Amino acid sequence: MNYSLSRRLLCRRAITCIKSNLLSEIIPSKGLAVEIARPFSVTQNRNMKLVQFSYKNDQKKICAGYLEGDGIVDINKADPSLGTTVIEILRNNQIDNVKKLKSTTKSPCQCPNVVPMSAVTLTTPIHGIDKVMCIGLNYKDHCEEQKLNPPPVPMMFSKFASTIIGPDQAVRLRTDVTRKVDWEVELVVVIGKKASFVKAADAFDYIVGYTVAQDISARDWQKEKNMGQFLLGKSMDTFCPLGPCITTSDEIGDPQSLDIKCSVNGVLKQSSNTNQLIHKIPDVIERLTSVMTLLPGDIILTGTPGGVGMYRDPPEYLQPGDVIRSEIQNIGAFDIKIEKF
Amino acid sequence: MNYSLSRRLLCRRAITCIKSNLLSEIIPSKGLAVEIARPFSVTQNRNMKLVQFSYKNDQKKICAGYLEGDGIVDINKADPSLGTTVIEILRNNQIDNVKKLKSTTKSPCQCPNVVPMSAVTLTTPIHGIDKVMCIGLNYKDHCEEQKLNPPPVPMMFSKFASTIIGPDQAVRLRTDVTRKVDWEVELVVVIGKKASFVKAADAFDYIVGYTVAQDISARDWQKEKNMGQFLLGKSMDTFCPLGPCITTSDEIGDPQSLDIKCSVNGVLKQSSNTNQLIHKIPDVIERLTSVMTLLPGDIILTGTPGGVGMYRDPPEYLQPGDVIRSEIQNIGAFDIKIEKF
Repeated sequence: MNYSLSRRLLCRRAITCIKSNLLSEIIPSKGLAVEIARPFSVTQNRNMKLVQFSYKNDQKKICAGYLEGDGIVDINKADPSLGTTVIEILRNNQIDNVKKLKSTTKSPCQCPNVVPMSAVTLTTPIHGIDKVMCIGLNYKDHCEEQKLNPPPVPMMFSKFASTIIGPDQAVRLRTDVTRKVDWEVELVVVIGKKASFVKAADAFDYIVGYTVAQDISARDWQKEKNMGQFLLGKSMDTFCPLGPCITTSDEIGDPQSLDIKCSVNGVLKQSSNTNQLIHKIPDVIERLTSVMTLLPGDIILTGTPGGVGMYRDPPEYLQPGDVIRSEIQNIGAFDIKIEKF
Repeated sequence: MNYSLSRRLLCRRAITCIKSNLLSEIIPSKGLAVEIARPFSVTQNRNMKLVQFSYKNDQKKICAGYLEGDGIVDINKADPSLGTTVIEILRNNQIDNVKKLKSTTKSPCQCPNVVPMSAVTLTTPIHGIDKVMCIGLNYKDHCEEQKLNPPPVPMMFSKFASTIIGPDQAVRLRTDVTRKVDWEVELVVVIGKKASFVKAADAFDYIVGYTVAQDISARDWQKEKNMGQFLLGKSMDTFCPLGPCITTSDEIGDPQSLDIKCSVNGVLKQSSNTNQLIHKIPDVIERLTSVMTLLPGDIILTGTPGGVGMYRDPPEYLQPGDVIRSEIQNIGAFDIKIEKF
């Protein structure tokens, strides 16, 4: 299958861009773009991009959907036996039912439940989960910029799940306590079912899909102010933007061969490919599930490539007003704004 | 007010022991004791011990209650407008309604909604929360046994919320991956309402009550196998036993003047008082809320005194079949069994 992201156009209109096989939406409240990569082939009906959204006339409620043509199918409206949120669908083990629902719609135009993109705001593609697990030092060039050897084992730390935000929200800086907030674009693995003592060879069976994260990091709190434990520097409110969708495993292609990029205010800061991961996804899952059970919806941020702000000369940190663009091939891109807390 | 714990008797019968002003229950499936400290005075009706329990004829459902006489009031049954679990009550800001409910019952014997203790099993007093925050190195003798100076700031790390278990469950050891699992009894602060940028002077206003935890720790993974990040050694499944109840702030007395003890198989291992905390509770809350928002139900494990297994000579670690007893004055005690995963 051939994917669109490599030849997409930036489409800053509140309409879909089917000709270029990507979907772009203005979020009116922020004026920022969200783009979702689209496969050229639409013959494989079971493949999907899971999203969450709120209706513009009911901003409080988060609904699960999937992309269909130039809109979104509201999963629970299309089939009330299915969960209303992505975590509910995963916990109820309903992902195959969602795929079945999608495969029974004949063509995008004939699907009676498609909500036009203009009627909704995209939110985080998953929330209400147990674990946000993160891998440190997992790209060679990110180790090199810190003058560190690649670690012999994946270094794992976490964020609190309440730090997750979507493209409809902003990263909010507590400028009274930190001036060293940095970007880190990362490929995110979304666990689809309970996983304990999983062998690397079986690991992909436990992954439902992939999304894009910013592992926002207050470097002073991560490195200096908490006795070496990363938690506080990684877990300030809003420090885990996720988006724009979850590309399911059967659509992603090879998750360890995807272009990954991060720009700040339009300037490219990070550009790599997930084939540069030091500790591969199956090995991470084997190690992690040897010590704990992963639950449906748990996410693993797989590490960031070189090009973060802290190791630039001079160092660069995020400021209120900045916009970060995070982008991974076959998933999509989203902009997120930085504001003062 | 005079409390009972100092002169309690271990009462291993499936009945309450009102004469000694404590409540003791056999959990039939495990044969282990749970005791809840009782004030001698019952005139202060608004004070309470919050518990969670399941009915023996419906073990799957967890219900919120409070102690009344020799039983438990099922809060949601007594007033269906109140939450069914403790986290629901806190998120709905209903703790004052629960206190009002309690104060309107005339005497324990006249309360129509008291469920006899023999009909229920006590579970964790809170679950389904966002944050399990932990403080490291927060008792002087625990620093001394590690030959470390008391840290200038509280070192904070976390466990995943899914690690919480109650006295009805067992700590399960993954003996294939760790043989160095240790005990750590700790006083737990339960946050009652959203807290951000809270000053130390106001910190107690945000605490709804206190409970007892074991910060179970796989020392090899905490110290050696994860590049210095504590997370994996602290977050194995079942590594956060909590119990037996939440003593509300208005009943605890001074939370920083409570006897705290841990025994393993009946042998006293840790014995201290929370007046030995290095970083006091209000200071911890001020620091923590300067970097993140605490949510209702979030818990803070305030650190463990000296006497853990790792620093004994020779070191001692938990084995399947062991029983840990965790006990704090004015809250209570609970036994927890160690099993093989």
